[in-house]
Amino acid sequence: MKILVLGGDGFCGWPTSLHLSAKGHDIVIVDNLSRRKIDEELNIQSLTPIRSIEERLNAWHAVTGRTIQFEQIDIAQDYSALLTLICQTKPDAVIHFAEQRAAPYSMKSAKHKCYTVNNNLNATHNVCCAIVESKLDVHLVHLGTMGVYGYGTAGLKIPEGYLEVALENGDKAEFLYPANPGSIYHMTKTQDQLFFFYYNKNDALRITDLHQGIVWGTQTVETKLDERLINRFDYDGDFGTVLNRFLMQAAVEYPLSVHGTGGQTRAFIHIQDTVRCVEIALNNPPLKGDRVKIYNQLTETHRIRDLAKLIANLTSVDVEFIENPRKEVDENELHAVNDCFLNDGLHPTKLEDGLLEEVVNIASKYKERCDVSKIPCASKWVK
Amino acid sequence: MKILVLGGDGFCGWPTSLHLSAKGHDIVIVDNLSRRKIDEELNIQSLTPIRSIEERLNAWHAVTGRTIQFEQIDIAQDYSALLTLICQTKPDAVIHFAEQRAAPYSMKSAKHKCYTVNNNLNATHNVCCAIVESKLDVHLVHLGTMGVYGYGTAGLKIPEGYLEVALENGDKAEFLYPANPGSIYHMTKTQDQLFFFYYNKNDALRITDLHQGIVWGTQTVETKLDERLINRFDYDGDFGTVLNRFLMQAAVEYPLSVHGTGGQTRAFIHIQDTVRCVEIALNNPPLKGDRVKIYNQLTETHRIRDLAKLIANLTSVDVEFIENPRKEVDENELHAVNDCFLNDGLHPTKLEDGLLEEVVNIASKYKERCDVSKIPCASKWVK
Repeated sequence: MKILVLGGDGFCGWPTSLHLSAKGHDIVIVDNLSRRKIDEELNIQSLTPIRSIEERLNAWHAVTGRTIQFEQIDIAQDYSALLTLICQTKPDAVIHFAEQRAAPYSMKSAKHKCYTVNNNLNATHNVCCAIVESKLDVHLVHLGTMGVYGYGTAGLKIPEGYLEVALENGDKAEFLYPANPGSIYHMTKTQDQLFFFYYNKNDALRITDLHQGIVWGTQTVETKLDERLINRFDYDGDFGTVLNRFLMQAAVEYPLSVHGTGGQTRAFIHIQDTVRCVEIALNNPPLKGDRVKIYNQLTETHRIRDLAKLIANLTSVDVEFIENPRKEVDENELHAVNDCFLNDGLHPTKLEDGLLEEVVNIASKYKERCDVSKIPCASKWVK
Repeated sequence: MKILVLGGDGFCGWPTSLHLSAKGHDIVIVDNLSRRKIDEELNIQSLTPIRSIEERLNAWHAVTGRTIQFEQIDIAQDYSALLTLICQTKPDAVIHFAEQRAAPYSMKSAKHKCYTVNNNLNATHNVCCAIVESKLDVHLVHLGTMGVYGYGTAGLKIPEGYLEVALENGDKAEFLYPANPGSIYHMTKTQDQLFFFYYNKNDALRITDLHQGIVWGTQTVETKLDERLINRFDYDGDFGTVLNRFLMQAAVEYPLSVHGTGGQTRAFIHIQDTVRCVEIALNNPPLKGDRVKIYNQLTETHRIRDLAKLIANLTSVDVEFIENPRKEVDENELHAVNDCFLNDGLHPTKLEDGLLEEVVNIASKYKERCDVSKIPCASKWVK
């Protein structure tokens, strides 16, 4: 397949691009390098020594003989460049990772809220609009989040995207699962769902929306091939996802900071499974006329305090409970269906299998590059 | 009350500003005059001879002795000017009309889709974000649309914003009524609801969202005081709402163009009732901590072909059935609750009372200004 990977220089986009290239697909990475610019803005860097996009692509070619094309386009701002690229490359699929993806970053200030809204919403709309305008039959695969569901529906198993309900008149109806976003970032993802709902309804756009849990881990089969291919590892209070942050804290013997009681239950997935799930989604596209296909992209759920305890036991670092910067319920259950991927052949990488490797090979190996002052979350949900 | 009226130069914003000024409120109109620029872009003009905003405000002062302040700000693009104005004026309420409001205009081309998304979403987000940032306790009143509901839930009476459903486990839950937008314009209004849901949840922002039907009529008590205060009347295929378009067509003896079978049932409200409803909403604000208050702002529902027949009988002009440019169901029922406004004292202007006045005083009086070539809808929902 010919595939455009929007945001293909980022944490999920890069390993996905390599994985699909390794599988023989013809990949074009489209990225405005915004994630690298945010590193500069926040004066942080990936724990792992990521290379420039040019060096990455040259290394990939040197190691595998495969070529990945790169186009530096800001898809949120430059609609016509995006449309031209789609018309010229005629992709079978477009994978859309090109959004600001950190909840704490989206809450840092009014400026960051406005940036996240403007960037994410225009990006998603431009992609949908350009595919329709190109008149090509392109399958759009989007990386969403489990966070669109919120965590408030106690005791109910979260279905894959749609909720069947009994109406007062006795009829049954099926709707998009009611949105309940917990941050500006999550809100934009719930608004993305309405772009997809509308463009699917009006223009029969074929769309798969992946509601992903919190990603952990760093490397995939392909990014391990050469150190120049190494993936990002974020440990800072804005972009570090909770499990990777704990691993880093353990490596530098910094107490594991649990927000609130740690009673929050969240969904997790290893980055290796992320790239496999995207491949499965590509190989199982919706047909013309199908509604938006929604997968829950997670492999296990855990309470945050249990994760902290697990890593504390592995490493003998303390756990510290600190004030929660987020506005969220202290304790919640989370039961989510993930039948689609399991039925389509995913064999999950379990926490117990991968954790120690991450601690030793990534967090410990690169710990000299850590700036511990960047570990705390400085963004507050309510000022 | 001190009140900012965003979009206060437009079709709903202008008569609302005058009505509230007449009631003794201190009004600041904020507008980027985009609607006048779109007139230039489309080479159309209001059937009624509207004056410049300066002449309007001078006339209002001359006629009533009251002063309305005007600030030319693009609230979608200039967040900091909006924030500064809110901090300086310390309004009790902000009324947000500042969105591109025509479904056909939003469907004209990719450029118009992108404009509508970028303008409407950034505008609404900037307002929410700036009110929170100002730390003032401002009541935000927003003009939404009945179109957020879609027209697909046959036989169900549409409640005011929230749907109570029985879940599979036997519990009951109440959600935002599932969104089902019929155009890019309507889609942005469904996305607005998620801004409101989120800012209300996270920041306890006090919000009233008015889900308005299709407005008809032109004049209110205040806009009739002097011809320089006259309101817009749009009859063109993009901005002309269906009933006003029929009135205009009748006046120039142009067959009443019904899209499809005319079996679409829609909600209607006279512009005089729009301004009264906004006043009622201002006088009945939600309390701090209340969820978003949603009113259905309509006074009657009609099938489009019945309306055409009504006007044909009043005027002896023919009805013509033409291909529907929209993608929508041919025939639908629409039953919507509008208890809130009726309970709070609205006495509706009924179609049978106001129609003839509109035909004679507006459509016939200004028919020489009509460009009949602009009457057909040139926007197609699917190309």
